[in-house]
Amino acid sequence: MSIVVQKFGGSSVGTPEKMKRVAKRVMETRQQGHDVAVVVSAMGDTTDDLISLAAQLSDDPSEREMDMLLSTGEQISISLLAMTLTSMGCQAVSLTGRQAGFRTDVAYSRAKILTIDNQRVLEEFAKGNVVVVAGFQGVDERGEVHTLGRGGSDTSAVALAIALDAEMCEIYTDVNGVYTADPRVVKKAQKMDEVSYDEMLEMAVMGAVVLQPRSVELAKEHELKLHVRSSYNYTEGTIVKEDAKMNKDLEKEMIVVGVAHDLNVLKASIFGVPDRPGVACELFAAWADEGVNVDMIIQSGSPDQRQDISFTCARNDKNKCQKVLSAFVRSLPADSYSLVDTMAKISAVGAGMITHTGVAATMFRTLYENGINIDMIATSEIRISCIIDERDVNKAAVALHTAFGLDAE
Amino acid sequence: MSIVVQKFGGSSVGTPEKMKRVAKRVMETRQQGHDVAVVVSAMGDTTDDLISLAAQLSDDPSEREMDMLLSTGEQISISLLAMTLTSMGCQAVSLTGRQAGFRTDVAYSRAKILTIDNQRVLEEFAKGNVVVVAGFQGVDERGEVHTLGRGGSDTSAVALAIALDAEMCEIYTDVNGVYTADPRVVKKAQKMDEVSYDEMLEMAVMGAVVLQPRSVELAKEHELKLHVRSSYNYTEGTIVKEDAKMNKDLEKEMIVVGVAHDLNVLKASIFGVPDRPGVACELFAAWADEGVNVDMIIQSGSPDQRQDISFTCARNDKNKCQKVLSAFVRSLPADSYSLVDTMAKISAVGAGMITHTGVAATMFRTLYENGINIDMIATSEIRISCIIDERDVNKAAVALHTAFGLDAE
Repeated sequence: MSIVVQKFGGSSVGTPEKMKRVAKRVMETRQQGHDVAVVVSAMGDTTDDLISLAAQLSDDPSEREMDMLLSTGEQISISLLAMTLTSMGCQAVSLTGRQAGFRTDVAYSRAKILTIDNQRVLEEFAKGNVVVVAGFQGVDERGEVHTLGRGGSDTSAVALAIALDAEMCEIYTDVNGVYTADPRVVKKAQKMDEVSYDEMLEMAVMGAVVLQPRSVELAKEHELKLHVRSSYNYTEGTIVKEDAKMNKDLEKEMIVVGVAHDLNVLKASIFGVPDRPGVACELFAAWADEGVNVDMIIQSGSPDQRQDISFTCARNDKNKCQKVLSAFVRSLPADSYSLVDTMAKISAVGAGMITHTGVAATMFRTLYENGINIDMIATSEIRISCIIDERDVNKAAVALHTAFGLDAE
Repeated sequence: MSIVVQKFGGSSVGTPEKMKRVAKRVMETRQQGHDVAVVVSAMGDTTDDLISLAAQLSDDPSEREMDMLLSTGEQISISLLAMTLTSMGCQAVSLTGRQAGFRTDVAYSRAKILTIDNQRVLEEFAKGNVVVVAGFQGVDERGEVHTLGRGGSDTSAVALAIALDAEMCEIYTDVNGVYTADPRVVKKAQKMDEVSYDEMLEMAVMGAVVLQPRSVELAKEHELKLHVRSSYNYTEGTIVKEDAKMNKDLEKEMIVVGVAHDLNVLKASIFGVPDRPGVACELFAAWADEGVNVDMIIQSGSPDQRQDISFTCARNDKNKCQKVLSAFVRSLPADSYSLVDTMAKISAVGAGMITHTGVAATMFRTLYENGINIDMIATSEIRISCIIDERDVNKAAVALHTAFGLDAE
């Protein structure tokens, strides 16, 4: 009897009705003869409600107490799902992260899973139970509760699947799988049958189907196949695996597998920075201290030995950027700074890109022909991204999807 | 530096505002130089909300999963109270039942505390922390979460005070202490300065100030003083201790210390039961199986060798009683049964009663003179209780309070 790990996010269990649908799905998998471990997140808005409650009581709650608070959300979900399963005649038991053997490092609000002791889960399988495990949480050596950070339940599910030597980890979501572009924007976007770990990593980071990047890295490291699929129907979703085959519906020579866009872009610039060693280092150390996750960086020299530095980050880091930049303009000193939150990022992704030329050329020409100005450019081995005006982003996504031959017929 | 354990119930922490008031109270005690452990219940309606959520998903949820679910309520409270304290400048840490060392037996929904390992709490004291402990919960040997049953936080607080060798356990409530009768009904009721464990046990069972009876038994066994007091003011409350002195405001010869009444009374009767050995045993075993807690019992013979048996229990056991009684009427067979839910219980309580005669006489005469009919009578060493019509209960309480010399001047 093979082991299947299924992960359901907070929106899939947001109401009693949805919880029952998830239970039905789990029970069907059990009835097919599999041992089933289910990882669930907190119901719907539970986490946000708890955060808002905490905000009423403390301006700056400690991360330890926030983890103590937020980990209750998953504990509520698992007990409710286990009792729903049992009431449908499917024997089930709920386990907290601790009970399921999740040991983490000591890093409140962003812990990493160190080990999973699978003994208890296997014992429950032996008793014939479906095991419902709280995602997003574990305990450190001392028994202190830690959460894994936003999207942590994906990583819980993948890590559990690895610990149980499961063949597959199913990630249930509200779309049919991973698409060549966001289907809400690009009408001709196609669902991919397969996608490689590396491509998924780039897609995940850029927000197509959102999987926590760490979960994809972990799956890659252990060659665990992921099946991203809909919790609303039985359509096959997208398999995430090493060296994914070309999708059968797509041209053989296809090297770009998807187009991703991201509106959550803030462009920050500091002008007239003195050109002396260590300045860039100082700047980015300051942003790291503030917890600002910097994405793209551009540094451009000018004739008078002073430089302009621009970078992008998430829009909700605007206040932190303002604080750091205004301090640096005074202390360096530099000429001035600017913050622009009307930009977006458009990216072409594909593992084949590394051995093919011409992708960048196609991308820039397509944007040019559509009258779209490129503000910044960044590349990785399997991705090219451009920062453009947010008003142009939908047009750019549609045009690039066509230009790279991704459109459905 | 002496150790103080304080217990706050769910209504005391029901809103962020109330939570802040509790935090202020705790901080003041800390500032007086005590090591403080605070036991809190789930906020306001949290427990009822969780129960109703479970009811939407399962007709008969397992007690294990209910304990998993309900124990989150206290975990939310402790983290919020700890962060509130910290934000006020009072160093604090929250501990779940497990983390605070509460080991229980295996009995979901009604576990008993076996031991408390006080090491972690003492470590946190040594670091200068106020320790906020989740009441109502603990874990068994395997790490399974158990709750202690309704009112279990009282027992958590008392057991923790004993484990920490605290001098006193303060139980905060929404009245000023234990009264000679319910002050909402008997205007001349007086707050008692002291009351004995045994008297408090009878008062608690009968619903004056509601303390979980087990908490009082435990305090008695270890001679731990309890201070029942208001969370809304700084008035001294009532000390619960062994051999309480007569209250200074009351007459020396007082033997009855309080009058208690209880409207939650269902009277069940079965008529024409065959008079053969073992019938009563069968009947009460069936009620025990259904989890019906039987209070008073009366059995009366009749000339034709058939008997009538009546007993009282809580009103919400009506359906269970109906089920058991209708089955017995058919199987014994008996003549018929009845269920009456318009009765109430009125009681006189006092440790001195055991050495004094005339208390029963005073009680029956007073009820007679006020035109109140007595339906059933039960006595213990320190209590006399009568079942009367619920419409007469307020009149009875006021009259008995006067008759036993308890009225405030």
